[in-house]
Amino acid sequence: MQQKKGGRAMAVRILFQPSGRRIKVRQRETVLETIRQNGLEIRAVCGGHGTCGKCKVRVHIKGRPMQNLIREGAVNPLTWNEKKCLTLQERQKNFRLACCLELYQDATVEIPAESRTEQGVIVERGRRARFLLNPRVQSVCVTMSPPSLEDFRSDEERLCEAVACETGRMKEKTCCRYGLLLRLPALLRKCRWRVQAVFLSSGEATEIIDAGPVPETENPELYGMAVDLGTTTIAASLADLSTGRVLARCSCMNGQICCGDDVVSRISHVMMHSDGLRQLADLVRQDIGRLAGDLAEKAGIRAERIYEMIVAGNTVMEHLFLGLDPERIGKSPFVSVLRRPVTLPAGQLGLKVPQFGDVSCLPIEAGFVGADNVAVLLAERLDQQPVRTMVIDIGTNGEIDYGDAEGIWSTSCATGPALEGAEISCGMRAAPGAIERVRIDAATGLPFCRVIGGGKPKGICGSGIIDVIAEFVRCGLIGPDGTFRKETDSPRLRPAGRHSREFVLATAEESGTGKELVITQKDVRAVQLAKGALYAGAVLLIRAGGGKAPERILLAGAFGSYIDKENACRIRMFPLCPGAVIESIGNAASEGALAALFDRDLRDKAGELSRQIRFVEAASQTDFQRLFFEGTMFPDHSKEK
Amino acid sequence: MQQKKGGRAMAVRILFQPSGRRIKVRQRETVLETIRQNGLEIRAVCGGHGTCGKCKVRVHIKGRPMQNLIREGAVNPLTWNEKKCLTLQERQKNFRLACCLELYQDATVEIPAESRTEQGVIVERGRRARFLLNPRVQSVCVTMSPPSLEDFRSDEERLCEAVACETGRMKEKTCCRYGLLLRLPALLRKCRWRVQAVFLSSGEATEIIDAGPVPETENPELYGMAVDLGTTTIAASLADLSTGRVLARCSCMNGQICCGDDVVSRISHVMMHSDGLRQLADLVRQDIGRLAGDLAEKAGIRAERIYEMIVAGNTVMEHLFLGLDPERIGKSPFVSVLRRPVTLPAGQLGLKVPQFGDVSCLPIEAGFVGADNVAVLLAERLDQQPVRTMVIDIGTNGEIDYGDAEGIWSTSCATGPALEGAEISCGMRAAPGAIERVRIDAATGLPFCRVIGGGKPKGICGSGIIDVIAEFVRCGLIGPDGTFRKETDSPRLRPAGRHSREFVLATAEESGTGKELVITQKDVRAVQLAKGALYAGAVLLIRAGGGKAPERILLAGAFGSYIDKENACRIRMFPLCPGAVIESIGNAASEGALAALFDRDLRDKAGELSRQIRFVEAASQTDFQRLFFEGTMFPDHSKEK
Ligand code: FES
Ligand code: FES
Repeated sequence: MQQKKGGRAMAVRILFQPSGRRIKVRQRETVLETIRQNGLEIRAVCGGHGTCGKCKVRVHIKGRPMQNLIREGAVNPLTWNEKKCLTLQERQKNFRLACCLELYQDATVEIPAESRTEQGVIVERGRRARFLLNPRVQSVCVTMSPPSLEDFRSDEERLCEAVACETGRMKEKTCCRYGLLLRLPALLRKCRWRVQAVFLSSGEATEIIDAGPVPETENPELYGMAVDLGTTTIAASLADLSTGRVLARCSCMNGQICCGDDVVSRISHVMMHSDGLRQLADLVRQDIGRLAGDLAEKAGIRAERIYEMIVAGNTVMEHLFLGLDPERIGKSPFVSVLRRPVTLPAGQLGLKVPQFGDVSCLPIEAGFVGADNVAVLLAERLDQQPVRTMVIDIGTNGEIDYGDAEGIWSTSCATGPALEGAEISCGMRAAPGAIERVRIDAATGLPFCRVIGGGKPKGICGSGIIDVIAEFVRCGLIGPDGTFRKETDSPRLRPAGRHSREFVLATAEESGTGKELVITQKDVRAVQLAKGALYAGAVLLIRAGGGKAPERILLAGAFGSYIDKENACRIRMFPLCPGAVIESIGNAASEGALAALFDRDLRDKAGELSRQIRFVEAASQTDFQRLFFEGTMFPDHSKEK
Repeated sequence: MQQKKGGRAMAVRILFQPSGRRIKVRQRETVLETIRQNGLEIRAVCGGHGTCGKCKVRVHIKGRPMQNLIREGAVNPLTWNEKKCLTLQERQKNFRLACCLELYQDATVEIPAESRTEQGVIVERGRRARFLLNPRVQSVCVTMSPPSLEDFRSDEERLCEAVACETGRMKEKTCCRYGLLLRLPALLRKCRWRVQAVFLSSGEATEIIDAGPVPETENPELYGMAVDLGTTTIAASLADLSTGRVLARCSCMNGQICCGDDVVSRISHVMMHSDGLRQLADLVRQDIGRLAGDLAEKAGIRAERIYEMIVAGNTVMEHLFLGLDPERIGKSPFVSVLRRPVTLPAGQLGLKVPQFGDVSCLPIEAGFVGADNVAVLLAERLDQQPVRTMVIDIGTNGEIDYGDAEGIWSTSCATGPALEGAEISCGMRAAPGAIERVRIDAATGLPFCRVIGGGKPKGICGSGIIDVIAEFVRCGLIGPDGTFRKETDSPRLRPAGRHSREFVLATAEESGTGKELVITQKDVRAVQLAKGALYAGAVLLIRAGGGKAPERILLAGAFGSYIDKENACRIRMFPLCPGAVIESIGNAASEGALAALFDRDLRDKAGELSRQIRFVEAASQTDFQRLFFEGTMFPDHSKEK
């Protein structure tokens, strides 16, 4: 055991459980920092500010109680935040917050299951529209005459002219990428002047990016990758650019989660750490690199034949991926560094895939409304719809688009993470163990829950929250203003504190954590705030677009696929639109990115689209307050009964 | 002292003299390799093949003679090449060839002066034509309105639109370079929305590459660098792009010299070493990087304000600089990898300057005729000349251009390095100690020499060779076929071998090396071969161009500036053109590169020019042999006397 002696800290080692990894602590580092530095998983929703209380860990040093450890100088004293976030019981069990904890002696640190980040669930239920197959990456097989005394053209000219001749493209505007030049002489001779050339076309220009032996089969082996870069989950698809088929899909947790659950805490991570931006960029690039490898393996193709990658993410995620400072996206007036689409050789971002091709980020709409939304619009071709259509994408931010061939309006509303299960006392992501459906028996007042993956519930996810609130409304457990009624007699409704009440969704015995799962008044309020923002945004958007009620409402994203649409209408998540068809469109951002991969003109369209969209800054409208408040209210079903 | 024991070599250290550096030898490494690896200077004209005999070094191990050292296993035995290249005397003095020598014991290795590479002399006597000042790099100062709730454009849009508005360039075609985006948000705010933007314009497109505080003076601080990338010497100029003034010039030895003196040995270095290409590319890039720093310091500017670099070199040098395989440039049909001009961000070549801008290589003409020649044509605007003009650039290769506004013809002739002083028994580069002018007194037959830098002569350089041969001709010491006449009575002419004769230019006492400086029959032959090639090339070029005799002959390069033009005519270096004006135009390649820096349209012109030039493959013409032979002959001045 090593101790701080005379001010000079000796090396301290932590054994992490259950991973079993033994890690040396760097000086003046919190345990959260050690965990992050070494790629271990832990929840840190607030980004390490000691406010979310999610990063609980348990400290074991020779079975000694915390007070003794603090007295002996083995750990730092409890911080004010820890006293607030940890129950007395937890403190007695040596629980601490990883982000507030410093260790000065060798210790074992247990990261309990509830503090670990779980693998998310992602919907894979795209209904792809038919797109023209017109990819930016194409190939052609050419035969060149070998050099002679009469024909001493350079290798590059020889290849460019052969490609231009074969494709009918302009000879003067055909060139080879520098990276290919480095390999060209050996390659042309090895292939005996007969090669398959892979090229990018944009406008009249042709850039040859790769060349190699003519493939033996008909398959030109041209692949592309579409990435839906979410704050929580990264979903990637591998597509065959010559057939338009999707060959494989993979997804993973966004590795940045260890630096904060939502974009706001990631931005603050960048602001608080001198190399925070680089760190976050590295994390997400590593994830994407791994996904590329996984996809190639899954589809049985060579990763170097992936020639293009299209990334669609929200504004902050695209900035972090590109290594651009996201600081000002997070505060009014929500200014991003970049809005335009950007295309770079993958190597410039330190990516290995595509090895010979480019990475493109779809254009950002405005401020918080990102390229993922543009991708959704691309997938649904909102600009070609004959009827007024509203697209609602609920994540940590709600993004709403509204329009048709006549015009598109768009807004973003700060729904907060409640609808994703975060900031709800027993909330969790849509992962195994989460309650996804709730039904309350109006007669007995008892709840029935459906749990993802079956078994006992560990928490509640977004769709479960909608359900439980809708059931509260239906059964009259809460009034129009969202307050738990006193006069109901559900056995699960009980007082909490002096003025408040709460609903026990699962008792300690019923739950998978051994603790009660409770919906508090504060949880109901969180949902009210979210739906109020959504409602106000939608109303203002319809108003900006001329007041025509939407005939179709499309729900995008995982959340849209999971929620019970009837319940969503019951709690008036969206403005009531009589006769409107509500549809889930799945991971439309992924579909939009794929569409841009298959049709290069659509990509230009994305740029156009992003400029055409009229962005409505909802919060700055005079009516917003009133509408927001109106939106927080529930319909009074009790009276209907 | 450490010895090879049981097959396992222990670390061997060499103390190099006169540099005094002590270097550890890697296993199975020749002394030449050790010297190269550690950046010491040594001549290795043949590139380390043991054939040129220039890499002589002297081995000292406790004063022991070589035979003993070999017997004791301290060094490897003499190779066959060493036995050929080293005199008995040299061998007795422990001389070896560095490229053949391996040491197994600690030793002192002396690199004698004649084996060291000397600093070259470069002409700095450009007579710059007036060029339109129309650089690719420009700047503008713009003021933006800060973001607000009404104006939430991204930082990039804000800057691009301000620049487009101020310059009148197209808004849609204005963008920021990725590297600038990384710095942009902090920068705009630090400068309070008022910046100087540096941009590149090409066609309708505008790319903003840098931005910073508005300069306090009128000077926008935009600089460019022009590099004449020679096989032996690299000459660089720093220019102010806003005034067209040249601020500083620097030159240095091409560091690749340690891997061979001429392009042929450099190509073979690439072929013989697995990482030879990378090594040569690194060497020249390091040299250029150092020159950039020197220039900035000399001119008192900040190196990061150098936004552009234009490189003009021969085909092999440009390939090596770009890291492209030069192998096939060296053999018929002389095919290069690339001919077109190429522009890359400097970072892609691992260069630090220009930090924010580009490096451009001028286009290559064909095979051996490189961008340096294109630069010469640019400088002289041969395509606008009203009268037939011939430009002769003599280096290791002779490059001849011929034409006027009606057309340009060009050829390359293998003059060999004789005219540069190499491959002449006492030849050396035009460096201090070299004989640059020779006069032979017809009466006494005694030579008078002028030495660069004064003092005793150490060898003879190109212009001296021309002089001495012209004097032989004038004094009738050699006949029309170049053979030393027997009947002359110069005291310096003496028999050599059974059938040959030689001329003693400096006796052992007169010379600075303590050895005689002798012009042998073989030396005369070398000059004959060179002038034969030049003559045949020029005649064939004139013929290809319609037979009009040139009215002006321009001699480019250092050699052209130094030679005595009358003597060159006397030995019939060029076809005799009655009435033609012969002019030296100095380092025209540098001037051409500068011109391209000042006028971006001229750069496009270079591409055009390189395509317009009709390249004449002289050696493949049926008449070549006869003309070549005719060209080797001297006029018979003895008869005129
Ligand atoms: S409390 Fe949020 S990370 Fe520690
Ligand atoms: S003999 Fe030419 S380098 Fe050694």
